[in-house]
Amino acid sequence: VQGSLIRKDATMNSTAFARRVAGVAARTESLLEKLLGRAPGMGEIARPDLLMDAMRYTVLGGGKRLRPFLLVETAKLFGKGGDGPLRAGAALELLHCYSLVHDDLPAMDNDDLRRGKPTVHKAYDEALAILVGDALLTLAFEILADKRTGATAQQRLELVQILARSAGCGGMVGGQLLDLAAEGRYPQLAHSLSDTDNIIRIQSMKTGALIMAACSMGAILGGASASERKALAVYSSCLGLAFQIKDDLLDVEGNAEDIGKATRKDATAGKATFVSLRGIAGAKTYLTSITAEAKAALKPFGNKAVVLAGLMDFNSARNS
Amino acid sequence: VQGSLIRKDATMNSTAFARRVAGVAARTESLLEKLLGRAPGMGEIARPDLLMDAMRYTVLGGGKRLRPFLLVETAKLFGKGGDGPLRAGAALELLHCYSLVHDDLPAMDNDDLRRGKPTVHKAYDEALAILVGDALLTLAFEILADKRTGATAQQRLELVQILARSAGCGGMVGGQLLDLAAEGRYPQLAHSLSDTDNIIRIQSMKTGALIMAACSMGAILGGASASERKALAVYSSCLGLAFQIKDDLLDVEGNAEDIGKATRKDATAGKATFVSLRGIAGAKTYLTSITAEAKAALKPFGNKAVVLAGLMDFNSARNS
Repeated sequence: VQGSLIRKDATMNSTAFARRVAGVAARTESLLEKLLGRAPGMGEIARPDLLMDAMRYTVLGGGKRLRPFLLVETAKLFGKGGDGPLRAGAALELLHCYSLVHDDLPAMDNDDLRRGKPTVHKAYDEALAILVGDALLTLAFEILADKRTGATAQQRLELVQILARSAGCGGMVGGQLLDLAAEGRYPQLAHSLSDTDNIIRIQSMKTGALIMAACSMGAILGGASASERKALAVYSSCLGLAFQIKDDLLDVEGNAEDIGKATRKDATAGKATFVSLRGIAGAKTYLTSITAEAKAALKPFGNKAVVLAGLMDFNSARNS
Repeated sequence: VQGSLIRKDATMNSTAFARRVAGVAARTESLLEKLLGRAPGMGEIARPDLLMDAMRYTVLGGGKRLRPFLLVETAKLFGKGGDGPLRAGAALELLHCYSLVHDDLPAMDNDDLRRGKPTVHKAYDEALAILVGDALLTLAFEILADKRTGATAQQRLELVQILARSAGCGGMVGGQLLDLAAEGRYPQLAHSLSDTDNIIRIQSMKTGALIMAACSMGAILGGASASERKALAVYSSCLGLAFQIKDDLLDVEGNAEDIGKATRKDATAGKATFVSLRGIAGAKTYLTSITAEAKAALKPFGNKAVVLAGLMDFNSARNS
């Protein structure tokens, strides 16, 4: 009886979970609006209206804000709430949005739709899309360094360092290049980019690094111990992989209207994915096992980790 | 006699000055080579070779490294030498290089030559030029946050904050947008972008902000007082303006081979510059007066400021 009670506490129904995601998304949205205003109170001189309009178009009114959610909920695991984690989450979201804008450019993935709206270079022009991305990336670091984001200078520096490492040439940007290479763009890199190990490597850099960064940043703001940080690194590494497997499944099984962008792009591009290598059934089995591994890593946190565990189930069930 | 002796001490001949610039440039180059290596010792996973090749192509083997020089010499004004200022200078140079790569893109200024070599999107392709810029910008922040760059966490945070503010939507990137608008690209912004006040505003954001950042960052690492930082802000603001006036003059009077990129672009683009508004003679008079103003701001530092004063003369005399 005791065991079954604990198990009951340790799961969260999907309505409660969705409400919790929506709550963080709403608070993040409202903070992002402030941060992208003309007078952000950060001692800058005038920001050009057109640039700020395009940045707001890019960032506001869309997205599940799952990276901020992960950051905020990880900090909360250690009893840390308030503005700090929300600000760090907003910085991470700005960085995520920059990567989407540049990724959508004609020279990169050449996408016309994102979150159901015309991409930035379609709604404005390519020059603005380049500059919007550059400005969002830069703003992310400005926000992290601000004293409202973390109690100590050391904490804020760690946030800057983690985000820079995760987003740079040894992380997200490096992963974007390998991803283009996996489509055959750079023949000199094409050899052996198509097996599962390499897909996992590309994924861990391109999307996984930022998901792991979200979790690490929450752990830093929460004051996690070294062993707690280690457990969360295993969890978030599995989460990143699970996200990619699900994305690959949605690219084949999902519909473009739900997702807000074109589907079946990977097959068209001849790109190796978890689905192309293992088939739909194989990818689903893999998703199930990696989800279980993520939950196992949360064991040291007991029932407090119910939300982070719920994020795994949310990912498995999502249709966009 | 006393007065003339002081005056003699307070100027530096151009050969000695050039040697000093070359010295900082050589140390910066060698540090940049290390920072753009495959194993930078910053705890990252593998950086893709092709990306690192393109980053090295972009950054190494060119440029006067005047921003690092300004940073290093400002720190030295306060007796602060060593690796910290050199690392901060290298970060600033990476950021400067990123802005050139993105600025050269077809959707932006569409330049084929930079520092006498094909621009990155010509030597590689557009996707790589976008990613190289993104990676350099991100790496700049990673380097600033590293403990080898500044003695205290507070100092390093200030470096991050100054660079982010200077480089972002209220600084360099905002200035790049206004600069495109000044060429008539965005009719909604074109009104009144062509008078001197607006040229100064665009310049102060597009190029001035980073030059002021170099000086501020040196002052922070040197432990400058508030009044010293104020004097240096006046100096560096004049220096930035003087650089732009000189660039505008070189665009009309210089030759492409010396400069390493196309000249007479501004007139072709119908862009208002200091030369188009005041004529060649008027722009030269303006340069002389702003140079004198910069030197006056250095007075509190006495003879120690001989190098920073020399930088003003160097700018007036340069032909590239």
